[in-house]
Amino acid sequence: MRSYLKVLSWMPAALKMPEDELISHAGLDSAVYLRIYLIGLKIFAPITVLAFIILVPVNWTNTTLQSSKVQHSDIDKLSISNIPVGSKRFAAHLTMAYVFTFWTCYVLLREYEIVATMRLRFLASEKRRPDQFTVLVRNIPPDPDESIGELVEHFFLVNHPDHYLTHQVVYNANKLDKMVKEKKKMQNWLDYYQLKYERNTSQRPTTKTGFLGCFGSKVDAIEYYTSEIERIEKEETDERGKIMKDPKSVVPAAFVSFRSRWGAAVCAQTQQTSNPTVWLTEWAPEPRDVYWDNLSIPFVYLTIRRLIIAVAFFFLNFFYVIPIAFVQSLANIEGIEKAAPFLKPLIEMHTIKSFIQGFLPGIALKIFLILLPSILMFMSKVEGLTSVSSLERRSAFKYYIFLFFNVFLGSIIAGSALEQLKTFLHQSANEIPRTIGEAIPMKATFFITYAMVDGWAGVAGEILRLKPLIIFHLKNFFLVKTEKDREEAMDPGSIGFDSNEPQIQLYFLLGLVYAVVTPFLLPFILIFFGLAYVVYRHQIINVYNQEYESAAAFWPSVHGRIIVALIVSQLLLLGLLSTKGAAQSTPVLLVLPVVTFYFYKYCKNRYEPAFVEYPLQDAMRKDTLERAREPGFDLKGYLMNAYIHPVFKGDEDDEKFSISDEPEAEQVLVATKRQSRRNTPVPSKYNGSESPSLAEIVNDQRL
Amino acid sequence: MRSYLKVLSWMPAALKMPEDELISHAGLDSAVYLRIYLIGLKIFAPITVLAFIILVPVNWTNTTLQSSKVQHSDIDKLSISNIPVGSKRFAAHLTMAYVFTFWTCYVLLREYEIVATMRLRFLASEKRRPDQFTVLVRNIPPDPDESIGELVEHFFLVNHPDHYLTHQVVYNANKLDKMVKEKKKMQNWLDYYQLKYERNTSQRPTTKTGFLGCFGSKVDAIEYYTSEIERIEKEETDERGKIMKDPKSVVPAAFVSFRSRWGAAVCAQTQQTSNPTVWLTEWAPEPRDVYWDNLSIPFVYLTIRRLIIAVAFFFLNFFYVIPIAFVQSLANIEGIEKAAPFLKPLIEMHTIKSFIQGFLPGIALKIFLILLPSILMFMSKVEGLTSVSSLERRSAFKYYIFLFFNVFLGSIIAGSALEQLKTFLHQSANEIPRTIGEAIPMKATFFITYAMVDGWAGVAGEILRLKPLIIFHLKNFFLVKTEKDREEAMDPGSIGFDSNEPQIQLYFLLGLVYAVVTPFLLPFILIFFGLAYVVYRHQIINVYNQEYESAAAFWPSVHGRIIVALIVSQLLLLGLLSTKGAAQSTPVLLVLPVVTFYFYKYCKNRYEPAFVEYPLQDAMRKDTLERAREPGFDLKGYLMNAYIHPVFKGDEDDEKFSISDEPEAEQVLVATKRQSRRNTPVPSKYNGSESPSLAEIVNDQRL
Repeated sequence: MRSYLKVLSWMPAALKMPEDELISHAGLDSAVYLRIYLIGLKIFAPITVLAFIILVPVNWTNTTLQSSKVQHSDIDKLSISNIPVGSKRFAAHLTMAYVFTFWTCYVLLREYEIVATMRLRFLASEKRRPDQFTVLVRNIPPDPDESIGELVEHFFLVNHPDHYLTHQVVYNANKLDKMVKEKKKMQNWLDYYQLKYERNTSQRPTTKTGFLGCFGSKVDAIEYYTSEIERIEKEETDERGKIMKDPKSVVPAAFVSFRSRWGAAVCAQTQQTSNPTVWLTEWAPEPRDVYWDNLSIPFVYLTIRRLIIAVAFFFLNFFYVIPIAFVQSLANIEGIEKAAPFLKPLIEMHTIKSFIQGFLPGIALKIFLILLPSILMFMSKVEGLTSVSSLERRSAFKYYIFLFFNVFLGSIIAGSALEQLKTFLHQSANEIPRTIGEAIPMKATFFITYAMVDGWAGVAGEILRLKPLIIFHLKNFFLVKTEKDREEAMDPGSIGFDSNEPQIQLYFLLGLVYAVVTPFLLPFILIFFGLAYVVYRHQIINVYNQEYESAAAFWPSVHGRIIVALIVSQLLLLGLLSTKGAAQSTPVLLVLPVVTFYFYKYCKNRYEPAFVEYPLQDAMRKDTLERAREPGFDLKGYLMNAYIHPVFKGDEDDEKFSISDEPEAEQVLVATKRQSRRNTPVPSKYNGSESPSLAEIVNDQRL
Repeated sequence: MRSYLKVLSWMPAALKMPEDELISHAGLDSAVYLRIYLIGLKIFAPITVLAFIILVPVNWTNTTLQSSKVQHSDIDKLSISNIPVGSKRFAAHLTMAYVFTFWTCYVLLREYEIVATMRLRFLASEKRRPDQFTVLVRNIPPDPDESIGELVEHFFLVNHPDHYLTHQVVYNANKLDKMVKEKKKMQNWLDYYQLKYERNTSQRPTTKTGFLGCFGSKVDAIEYYTSEIERIEKEETDERGKIMKDPKSVVPAAFVSFRSRWGAAVCAQTQQTSNPTVWLTEWAPEPRDVYWDNLSIPFVYLTIRRLIIAVAFFFLNFFYVIPIAFVQSLANIEGIEKAAPFLKPLIEMHTIKSFIQGFLPGIALKIFLILLPSILMFMSKVEGLTSVSSLERRSAFKYYIFLFFNVFLGSIIAGSALEQLKTFLHQSANEIPRTIGEAIPMKATFFITYAMVDGWAGVAGEILRLKPLIIFHLKNFFLVKTEKDREEAMDPGSIGFDSNEPQIQLYFLLGLVYAVVTPFLLPFILIFFGLAYVVYRHQIINVYNQEYESAAAFWPSVHGRIIVALIVSQLLLLGLLSTKGAAQSTPVLLVLPVVTFYFYKYCKNRYEPAFVEYPLQDAMRKDTLERAREPGFDLKGYLMNAYIHPVFKGDEDDEKFSISDEPEAEQVLVATKRQSRRNTPVPSKYNGSESPSLAEIVNDQRL
């Protein structure tokens, strides 16, 4: 027993770390990600208690199911199904629907406020970072007379004369990137053969030069790879020189840095020219968050790409069963026997045959579901987003839609999304919530199982890291050749917002939909959120790496999806009650989605700007503080190489940009109460000393 | 004959004025408003020709209607109804649907581009105007230590130190406004009685002091009104003094002016503080465009007001028939006889009785429809918009929705919007376009009549100004007492975008919907657009006054509504064809709305910013030009009193803000080709000379 408790000793440790420490340890993204589980607890704990105190007795003390001949479980007796048609007891459910809605909205509002405040405080207290001063400019129009670099400099000197500091052009380094990767691979092979040779010096290892080392002439491996590396290194140097010289290798995009956060905030949030398809500015993502491949997509293509992906996603969502069914129809015993006759005697053995017959039909679907997040991420990449964080948010959105139709609705009305589409098209608008609503109570048992198998077990697997363990051992067996390989294989990666968050949202949806209908489901949801909160807190502290910091930019979509779940639950309850002879409840319930929608609009107006805009006052305050504290700081030098493509950058200077100012200094300066005075700017050094030199540059170029 | 032609001689005159002159004569709004008619001609002229060449023969050479027993007119023989079920001839209609869609989109794209260019050119060439330098700041948070004026000054000195110039607070002058109006009325009565006395000096005119001059004690009219005016004048002076002194009469909103357009553009288009509900900034409307009453609505109320209005408009749109039916049930012969028994003998006369019976039921509806634009405008005012132009755009949007449901759909499926709502709720999503689509060809004759009665006759009435003529004579008879009254009664007002534009949109909708179905309707639409174009061009040049200048800010909504009409027409055709045994055409036709929607998105991204944002390059260019041309201009003095409430302003200084710079000067300076150099700013006078003095102000306030 004690040893069992010892196994769980990580739990209190995971909960002990205060949130501030967590933020500085794992970033705001991770801390706010945990709040998604917390919000689940906050919403569902009181709802569960209330539902068990009020709704369960109301449901239990009926005999509808006992007297009817329909098969039913004890769970059904606790649910709304047990109430006779047209009963006045539905008033309790109506009231509870209102109470639950208002409680959910209250929690959502509070949390939005807290997260927005956390984000603003985080941004205000952050160390100096290059992206605070930098704007990503895309679609720079070509000019026959000037290079992109000159063009950028002239444009911003003219239009932001007091604020422009410097810029970095973006090189198209895809080819170089490939070479660097090739060299790394060769180096790895070289290490492997050297290790092999060290262990057994009697025999020089050999390899074949052809495909996968299996074909072609035999050569001495160490010599071969050494010469290959030399060749690639030479090519690489040539390519580097070519990129730097050839103006065609410069992509029409640039990172433009400003003297102050104020200047950058102004440029990032305004339109530069009267043509909104050129000189597009937006906040530069963090250097490590930039998705370099998408920086050079022209404006027109963006709309077309989005259209294509929208259509493709529509088909993926509603028609994915078709190709899978096709693959399944091929992958049967006869097909295999035809394709590989030599396997026939093996397959015809009874046990193997039945195994294959049971296993094969599901495998195509399983593979598809495993690959799905990658497919969605690929789709998002095609859409042309420029930062990894926005790509993950986009993929999460797509994945949520997929889960909503194919898991939630698919399980309830027991058909593929394609069949649903047909149903929706052929049913009237008020018939759809009825059909779904009617089926909901019957599926409660299924979703309880789902919450346990997928939710609880998934979380338990997460703390044991089962999937990564399997993958690691597979990799170790097939791919790992050197220590470096093993290290890479052991890299836990980041938390994977794009596939995890939509799955959490599914539990919000289930909880809200079943809160009034079958309260018995709620404890299972509650346990899931509790368990997941503890486990992921531990994982975030001890396992995962932070890949980027978006300062909780994902919160508006998390909030929005919970609202969607709430509205869906209201509509389905409306449909359900109208089939239970409580049609007079319809207008009462119709108020809820309308009010909820306007609550969403209010929240969007009130809090979303904190996640999208960067207020000038905050920028000015931070600028003023920093100038007062470090009057002589060489910002230009600091920003000079912040945004260069990773292939041009050694690993050693990654840390350069996180040199901290002392956080105490800030406290001293912000102590005064009055807002409007405390950040009166100190007369700027820049305007006095550097502006003339910039003007000289312009004049020089003019002469 | 010759005299008849003479009557029409205004036509060529109306068409003669070139567009540039029209813009300078009547403003860009009016010129672009005319382009709505022009776009109708451009879209429908080629469509009509094509439809008559291709579709009419295809439809005509069938005998479906002749052989069937359904009653039909010759118009039906030209329509799609004449083609047998399942015929291959529908391929022609499919092709034409594609051709018409692409042509409409092409025209829309071209026009959007032209209007956007016109707007940008207009903004660039405009004279100096106060709203170019001014930002409207709303929801200024209260501060216990400072007045609103001081607060505004401090805030902008701190956060826009190099750009802030001056500000004007907004006074709550509603009471004063009322007094001024009261005084004007009294003055008018005084004039009237003085006139009366001059004509007939034998008798001093008298009046009664009570309600409407009918009750109370009899007094000498001239003396009474003279003393009343004196009393109000005194009260007015007191009120003026009180407003200026009492800090409570200052509304938490202000007009903040900047040194440069660049500074104003930055402030108007960025968020100021981390709380997005305070210090809200937006471009100040033109002084004459400001809607003063709405400047002080707090942020939270805006969401609530919008919710209330949305619900109210929903009920207005779908349930307005209920109260009207109720009024109608009251206003019958028996009701009148009961309420006014002395009328009984009169009413019982045969002719009068039948007249009342025929006339009464319609009158409630007629009155409602006449009042509708005013009701919608009132609703928009409650929503809290701050400029007259945006109020008109908002009302136009509401009116369009009303017309769409109650006129277009209401005529086709012949039911009130309320019945439609029921139908839509009870029919499946693919059934709705079928039901409507099937009914469309049958209603062609009705809409032809409608186009003639409402469209042609309406335009003819417009050139004769029938409605204003009647109203003028009514006013003249009942209300006009003095010359000033008559002048006011003769004021033609402005063009009335909020009620006219939605009516034009109805013709776009009819034209696009019937283009493929019953091409015979097209010439009637075409004649409407042609006639209306000429008439309104004449009216704009010679009759209407310009109330404000929004620089064609309404174009995106005009464009959007034509797209809506296009998509509706595609969906209805889809529904119609699926009932005609051409179900295989559905996927082919489904492509059209998807592509059209993405075309809309593309246009929105590409051109809408020109109507919403003010690019920094344009601002900088205009600033630079102006500084070079008038280095010593006293901007502060110019802006000092631009935004004061009209009651504080005499009529005489209205013209002050339109003093022009010579337009030639601009031409000289813009002649160089290179963009990035031609607007390199001249070293600013402001930064050198005035910034220190501003810093002194701040320092003074700090000490």
